[in-house]
Amino acid sequence: MSLTIKSHFAYPTYLSFTTKPSRFTGYNTKIRPNSIYHFNPLKLTYYQPKKMQAPVQYSPAPVIKSSLIEPDGGALVDLVVPEGERGAKTIEAESLPKVRLTKIDVEWVHVISEGWANPLKGFMREDEYLQSLHFNSLRLKDGSIVNMSLPIVLAIDDETKERIGSSSHVGLAGPDGDLIAILRSIEIYKHNKEERIARTWGTTAPGLPYVEEVIIPAGNCLIGGDLEVLKPVKYNDGLDHYRLSPKQLRKEFDRRNADAVFAFQLRNPVHNGHALLMNDTRRRLLEMGFKNPILLLHPLGGFTKADDVPLDVRMEQHSKVLEDGVLDPETTIVAIFPSPMHYAGPTEVQWHAKARINAGANFYIVGRDPAGMGHPTEKRDLYDPDHGKKVLSMAPGLEKLNILPFRVAAYDMVAKKMAFFDPSRAKDFLFISGTKMRTYARTGENPPDGFMCPGGWEVLVKYYESLQAEEATQQPAAVSS
Amino acid sequence: MSLTIKSHFAYPTYLSFTTKPSRFTGYNTKIRPNSIYHFNPLKLTYYQPKKMQAPVQYSPAPVIKSSLIEPDGGALVDLVVPEGERGAKTIEAESLPKVRLTKIDVEWVHVISEGWANPLKGFMREDEYLQSLHFNSLRLKDGSIVNMSLPIVLAIDDETKERIGSSSHVGLAGPDGDLIAILRSIEIYKHNKEERIARTWGTTAPGLPYVEEVIIPAGNCLIGGDLEVLKPVKYNDGLDHYRLSPKQLRKEFDRRNADAVFAFQLRNPVHNGHALLMNDTRRRLLEMGFKNPILLLHPLGGFTKADDVPLDVRMEQHSKVLEDGVLDPETTIVAIFPSPMHYAGPTEVQWHAKARINAGANFYIVGRDPAGMGHPTEKRDLYDPDHGKKVLSMAPGLEKLNILPFRVAAYDMVAKKMAFFDPSRAKDFLFISGTKMRTYARTGENPPDGFMCPGGWEVLVKYYESLQAEEATQQPAAVSS
Repeated sequence: MSLTIKSHFAYPTYLSFTTKPSRFTGYNTKIRPNSIYHFNPLKLTYYQPKKMQAPVQYSPAPVIKSSLIEPDGGALVDLVVPEGERGAKTIEAESLPKVRLTKIDVEWVHVISEGWANPLKGFMREDEYLQSLHFNSLRLKDGSIVNMSLPIVLAIDDETKERIGSSSHVGLAGPDGDLIAILRSIEIYKHNKEERIARTWGTTAPGLPYVEEVIIPAGNCLIGGDLEVLKPVKYNDGLDHYRLSPKQLRKEFDRRNADAVFAFQLRNPVHNGHALLMNDTRRRLLEMGFKNPILLLHPLGGFTKADDVPLDVRMEQHSKVLEDGVLDPETTIVAIFPSPMHYAGPTEVQWHAKARINAGANFYIVGRDPAGMGHPTEKRDLYDPDHGKKVLSMAPGLEKLNILPFRVAAYDMVAKKMAFFDPSRAKDFLFISGTKMRTYARTGENPPDGFMCPGGWEVLVKYYESLQAEEATQQPAAVSS
Repeated sequence: MSLTIKSHFAYPTYLSFTTKPSRFTGYNTKIRPNSIYHFNPLKLTYYQPKKMQAPVQYSPAPVIKSSLIEPDGGALVDLVVPEGERGAKTIEAESLPKVRLTKIDVEWVHVISEGWANPLKGFMREDEYLQSLHFNSLRLKDGSIVNMSLPIVLAIDDETKERIGSSSHVGLAGPDGDLIAILRSIEIYKHNKEERIARTWGTTAPGLPYVEEVIIPAGNCLIGGDLEVLKPVKYNDGLDHYRLSPKQLRKEFDRRNADAVFAFQLRNPVHNGHALLMNDTRRRLLEMGFKNPILLLHPLGGFTKADDVPLDVRMEQHSKVLEDGVLDPETTIVAIFPSPMHYAGPTEVQWHAKARINAGANFYIVGRDPAGMGHPTEKRDLYDPDHGKKVLSMAPGLEKLNILPFRVAAYDMVAKKMAFFDPSRAKDFLFISGTKMRTYARTGENPPDGFMCPGGWEVLVKYYESLQAEEATQQPAAVSS
C-alpha cells in the first residue's frame, strides 16, 4: 500500500527541490544565469567580526569565537530597569496614565525587553510601523538595514487615548492590573486594521487566528514609545527556566564553545523526521569543518491557535526526545522563544529568523510553508509552500544569516524508520500529516514504529486523552447551563 | 462666507505640517530626537557623480553637468530591437507560441522597454515579483537596492500556458493580433490574485479600478522573461510627440543645460494652486543656488479610472496653461509618463518617483494622498493622506532623490487668487475639491477668478459639455434597446 499524505506540520518534512543538490552541503543553490538580480538562498557565509562580510563558500572560518553573529543594530538592548531603580520607577509608573495590556501584549513586552526584536527599543512608532508594513525592514541612522517584517505594536482604544491626553509617558499594566512597564516619549497614531492585516497576511479573509484574537478586538489607535520594563517578565508556569533571553543563550553558546549555532523554530511535537534533519544538519556542519555546532531547539512559546499542541505538552515531549537520546543533550539547547505566533507565512518567517540572529544563531533551518496554515475560507494553503524559503533568502537585513532549507523526510516503510525521501522508490514512503498524527494519538492507535520515540509519543497520547476527558465532562455542563 | 472643502485632487493643495518650516527652503524637516532610525524626508542632497553621496544641505553643488542623477542600476535599458534586426526577429516571433496582450499590458511593454522601470529587463520573474511584493525593492547582483514597489507582471490563462508548453520564448501580440515583442527565457509561476491585491493595495475591498479592470479578469499564471520589443510602441492618437522616453528626456535636460530637474506627477488638470507651487519650487531652487532648474510637468498617460479627465483633454488643458503663461515654457517640459495608474497610494507613489529618477529628475514633488482615492466600500480615504510622503521619504532605493512635499495652497478670497494657505486667517481660504471643480465645469458656472487660467478652464468646460451631450444621446438609445 502506498499512502501519500502531504504534511501540514509547522515545519513538515516534505519539500521538493527542482535543482541539483550542491556537492558539499546537500543543500540546494539556485543561481539564475544572466540574472541581474541577486538570488542566492543558500550561500554559506561565515561571520567575520569587525569587517565587511565577504561570502566565503564551503571552507571553514579559521577562528570562530564567542559571538558568532552580531545582534541587529550592534548591541543587544536590555530594557529591564536595573534593580536599584525599580522602586522609584514603579512609583513614577503609578503616577502616569495607564494602558491595560492583554496577555499577548505582555508577550510582546517580554520579546522587546530582551532584544529579540533588536534594535527596537519599544512598541513601534509610526515611521517604524510604516517601514515594517511596506518594506519588512528598518533603516537605521547609519544607513544600515535590519529586518523587521511584523509590526510590533500596541493598540489602545479611544477612551484610553482620551485618558492619556497630552502626557508624554504612560504606565503599562498587565491583565491583572499589575504595573509592568513605562512607555516613554509616546506617539499615538491611527490603527488602520484593514491595511495592517492585508499587508501582513496578504489576505483579509476572516478566520486568521492572530487577527481574530488580537487585531479585531483591539483599539483604533496605536501607541509607540520607548519601553522601560519594571522587572523581567515571568509566567510562573513551571517553564520559566526554559525562557532564556538572547543574552543568556549567547552566554550558553560561549560556555559550550559553539563554533556554529543552528536554530530550529517549531510549534509542534518533534518526530524522528525532524530529528533526522537536525542530526543530519549537524553532521554536515561538521563535514564543513565546524568543530562544535550546537542545535538551538527553539519552540515558540507565545500565542498559538487553539488546535496547536499547548506549550507545556510540547516541552514535555521535547524533553522525552532528549531523554530517549533521539537528540543529543550535549549538543542541543532547548529553550522557549517567547513570541506570539502570527501564522503569516513568508512575512512571519523573516521575524522568526531575525529574532534568532539576535539570540546568536548563525544558521537557520527553514521548512516547507513556514508559519503557514490553510486558507481560512478557501480549500488551499494560504501561502505558496515555497514562498517562505524564497522570501527569507532575499529578505533585507538577513544577509548575514545562513539559511538551510529542509530536506524531504518521510516514513520509509521498508526500513521502518524516518528517512530522507528517495523519489526513485516513492511508493515506499509514507507522509504522516499533523491531522493523521493527531488521529493516531486520539484513537490510541500507534503510529508506525520509528515515527517518534516512545516516550515522546506517550506524552501526546496522554494529552489527547485528557482533552477528550475534558470535552466529555464539559459537554453535559454546556447542555445543562 | 468661509467655505472649507478638502481637496480630492491627485495632488491637492491641502497639506498640513506640524513641524516648523526650515529656514531656507520653506520645506519641512522632521528629525526625531534620540531616534535610532533614519527618518529624514526632506534632507536635500545634491548629486555627486562617481562618489558616495553625502548629504549637503542648502549649499549648491559647485559643478552640475548633464546626467543629474543616474538611472537605477547604472545604465538605461533599451529593449527595442535595432532596426536592422527587426525582420529576422519578427519572423522568429511569428514561429513562437503567442501570448495575446491587453491594452494595459502594452502600456507596460512600453514602460519596460524604455527603462522607466530600470533595471528591469522584462516582465517580472517570481524572485522579482516576491521582492516587489514584500520589500518594495529589488536587490541587484552587486548588493545595491533599487526601488520597485509595483509588481510589473504579465498574466496568462491556463489555456495559454498549455499552448506555450515547454517553449523557452514566446511572442507577444497586441490586442489586434499584431506582433509586438518576444519574451525570452520565460518563467511561468502562480498568480495569487488575492495576495497580490492585499499586499499592493492594503485592502481587498471590491471596486479598486486597476483590480477590476486588470487583475480580476486576468489569468491564474504570471509569465516573466526578458523583453525584446520589435518596434517602439506608438499610440497614433496625436499625442505620441509628448511621449518622450527617459533617454529623450535626459537629452532634453542636457540641451537646456538643466542643473536641477523637478518632476511633477499629475493625472488632473493644472490649476493655479499647482502652478503657484511649481513656480515657487523653481524660485526656491534658484535661491539654493541652482542656475537653471527645469520643471518636468509629467501627466500620467496610461490607464486611469473612468471619472478621471481623459488624457487628450488634459494635454490640451496643460498646453493652455503654458500658452497663457501660467507656467514658463522656457523652463518647463511637458511630456507623458506612459504608465498605467494603480491608485495604490503609498505603494504607487514610490513607483511614480522611481520612474522619474530613470528619466533624470533629481527632485520630486509629492502631495497629500498621492495616488490615493476614496475607499471603494467605506466612507473614508483609502490611505492616510500623510502616509504617501512618509513612505516615500523612507523607501529603499530612493535615497538619492530629493523629495519635496507640497505646501498648502488654496483660493485666497481676499487676494482673489490661489495662494499658500495662511492658518492665521483660515476663513479667507477656499479649498476647491475635484468634485467641486467638476460641478463648476459641468454646470457652466465659473470658478472664482484666479482659480485656473481662462484658456485651461475653457478646455474643461468643453469636455464636460461634450460628455453631457454624449450622455444625452446615449440614454434614449439605452432605453430603446
